Amino acid sequence: MLMTEYQQRIERLQNRLTTLQLDGALYFYPIDVFYFCATRQTATLWVPSSGAPVLFVRKSYARAVEEACIDDIRRFPRSSEFSDQIVGRKIGMTFDVIPVQQFHYYQQLLPRREFVDISQLHRELRSLKSPWELERMRHSGAQLSRVFASMVDYIQPGLRELDVAAEFEVRLRRIGGEGLVRMRAFNQELFLGLTVSGENAAAGGFFDGAATGVGLSSAAPHGASQALILPDQPIMLDYTGIFDGYIVDMTRMYVCGRLDPQCRDAFTLARKIQDHIAAQLTPGALCSDLYDQALCMARDAGLENNFMGPPGEQAGFIGHGVGLELDEYPVLAPKSAVSLQRGQTIAVEPKFTFAGRGIVGIENTYAVTAQGGEKISVLSDDLIQIN
Amino acid sequence: MLMTEYQQRIERLQNRLTTLQLDGALYFYPIDVFYFCATRQTATLWVPSSGAPVLFVRKSYARAVEEACIDDIRRFPRSSEFSDQIVGRKIGMTFDVIPVQQFHYYQQLLPRREFVDISQLHRELRSLKSPWELERMRHSGAQLSRVFASMVDYIQPGLRELDVAAEFEVRLRRIGGEGLVRMRAFNQELFLGLTVSGENAAAGGFFDGAATGVGLSSAAPHGASQALILPDQPIMLDYTGIFDGYIVDMTRMYVCGRLDPQCRDAFTLARKIQDHIAAQLTPGALCSDLYDQALCMARDAGLENNFMGPPGEQAGFIGHGVGLELDEYPVLAPKSAVSLQRGQTIAVEPKFTFAGRGIVGIENTYAVTAQGGEKISVLSDDLIQIN
Repeated sequence: MLMTEYQQRIERLQNRLTTLQLDGALYFYPIDVFYFCATRQTATLWVPSSGAPVLFVRKSYARAVEEACIDDIRRFPRSSEFSDQIVGRKIGMTFDVIPVQQFHYYQQLLPRREFVDISQLHRELRSLKSPWELERMRHSGAQLSRVFASMVDYIQPGLRELDVAAEFEVRLRRIGGEGLVRMRAFNQELFLGLTVSGENAAAGGFFDGAATGVGLSSAAPHGASQALILPDQPIMLDYTGIFDGYIVDMTRMYVCGRLDPQCRDAFTLARKIQDHIAAQLTPGALCSDLYDQALCMARDAGLENNFMGPPGEQAGFIGHGVGLELDEYPVLAPKSAVSLQRGQTIAVEPKFTFAGRGIVGIENTYAVTAQGGEKISVLSDDLIQIN
Repeated sequence: MLMTEYQQRIERLQNRLTTLQLDGALYFYPIDVFYFCATRQTATLWVPSSGAPVLFVRKSYARAVEEACIDDIRRFPRSSEFSDQIVGRKIGMTFDVIPVQQFHYYQQLLPRREFVDISQLHRELRSLKSPWELERMRHSGAQLSRVFASMVDYIQPGLRELDVAAEFEVRLRRIGGEGLVRMRAFNQELFLGLTVSGENAAAGGFFDGAATGVGLSSAAPHGASQALILPDQPIMLDYTGIFDGYIVDMTRMYVCGRLDPQCRDAFTLARKIQDHIAAQLTPGALCSDLYDQALCMARDAGLENNFMGPPGEQAGFIGHGVGLELDEYPVLAPKSAVSLQRGQTIAVEPKFTFAGRGIVGIENTYAVTAQGGEKISVLSDDLIQIN
């Protein structure tokens, strides 16, 4: 069964390569190799547009042989012998993640080849999850939900954001969370997730989301800070749960005491927007259209300037694909003129930022189905009130 | 004072650029930008070979203005206006970390320029720590050492490797550890560090070190697993402590009960090798020579095949630079024909692997001084025996 899963991934790639008149694809970015082979050892994967793929392993060969769902596994050959083993002239590579030095290295190893960027095609393939992958993601969602639910016994005023973050992290780790968040975008990074409260949550930042948080220093300027959790402030926990490599992304709101009316109303609206979008996560729905509808609902409530981040730094989307990486396709964004397909998994996360006061919002990961979004992060969306 | 620190970094770069007859350097890899500006917001730094550098900020502008130790901070201009603001024809970039897509993007933005790889030069500059940086690293070392020392009250037989890892991680986080381990090598990644015991510790893996560990799945195949800590097995904790972005790297050995004689002898030898190398961490010492001496000591004890990893997958170094990234220059490796300089910081980590039984070894981070290595990770190197 598992072998079939990987054979199908290779076949889908080969069909696309054939359409593009490429002779094959060469992968060496670890998570890309993992997607096609089930091993993340250091290795280079050659997928000819027809015929059997070959995995050239640098380290660890023994573990690659043990793990990989692929028949032809070789040790990485001498530089002078590599070219003969790659039969093809026009070769795809994921230019979005390959450093220039690596590219030059393979240009030297493979003279007289033409290299073509297949980042887009690769991300499209990855965006469609198989039933097997959806099972993995449901498991990640269930595990992550357990931790979100458990935090009610821990959060209280006087703790630092960092205490809450550390506690969330350790609970996630103890049940097997892998922790390492893979992001594809060049300049993004995230340590497990964000615990952000009050005005810290409304600060701008480098992170491509509605909230970044202040963090612990200018070297790691995101997520929890040393600031104290105060009564009646919105506390946002936005975390990734990663099991078998598959990421689920969720946000829940906590408060010690009561939210003020404006934050409460905005939170209600965020849930309405989310549910409105989730119902439309069906094959054929247009990504830009879903974004526009969400923005329209925010505008109707007079909250356009608070939507998805501080003014001038608002995130330009309300949902993003998620899977082996946190930032997968599709993106629910204004100019995203693509239609949803069954089996895509999307984190929908409408949020509202109020300068000096904080952020409120919700986030769940859904699978696109004919009946609308299947909620993978199964837990009540309610505000979690403490005391 | 802090401004002077950053001015000096820029000046050292400018001197090197002038020597290489480059007109300037363009940085946009986040930690490279941070090194020269003290901000890790999403931004592009232009350093002309003479004159004032300019920081072009995408997000967050407000935070970059607040954090950056640089005078000329601008919003990233329209694409058509960028070229006019970069006066120079021959421009350096760090090709080791810039993806091909980003490179092509800047090629389009900056027509008629020649781009040159300055990765080597950049890493050489970064390898030399200023007194201010050494203070940051001493702080990281002191914090990390506290956690290593504290673990004696937690580790016991019957816990999983994962429990020990989660506990180490949460203790580190609660005292402000930033957690996100930055590595420069293309295909490397590490989640905080490694808790590995018994035969799991002797498994091969993708990680460029003596130990990788089994991990939780083939998607995250490094570090702690669900395996139980057993009596009398060597338990290796190899962790990074990161504060203000500066990483210190340490390894300590624990055992619940007693190590067998062979492991005990190998551990004693690892400490001897470490101390022998540490004493020679003086300006002018040749990196390859230090490696050769270590290998020679291992060989004399009949442990060459156990040195630095499982047979066929042995790590080709016994020490590596460390700072804002875990894998900095210099590297104490066979072909590293460079001499140490004062202010370099090096993690020295002789280790011995015994198939089916585990790994023993030691690791400390040192600063190169005229009197030999200054130990930055200040804690006894003794085996930590439990019960």
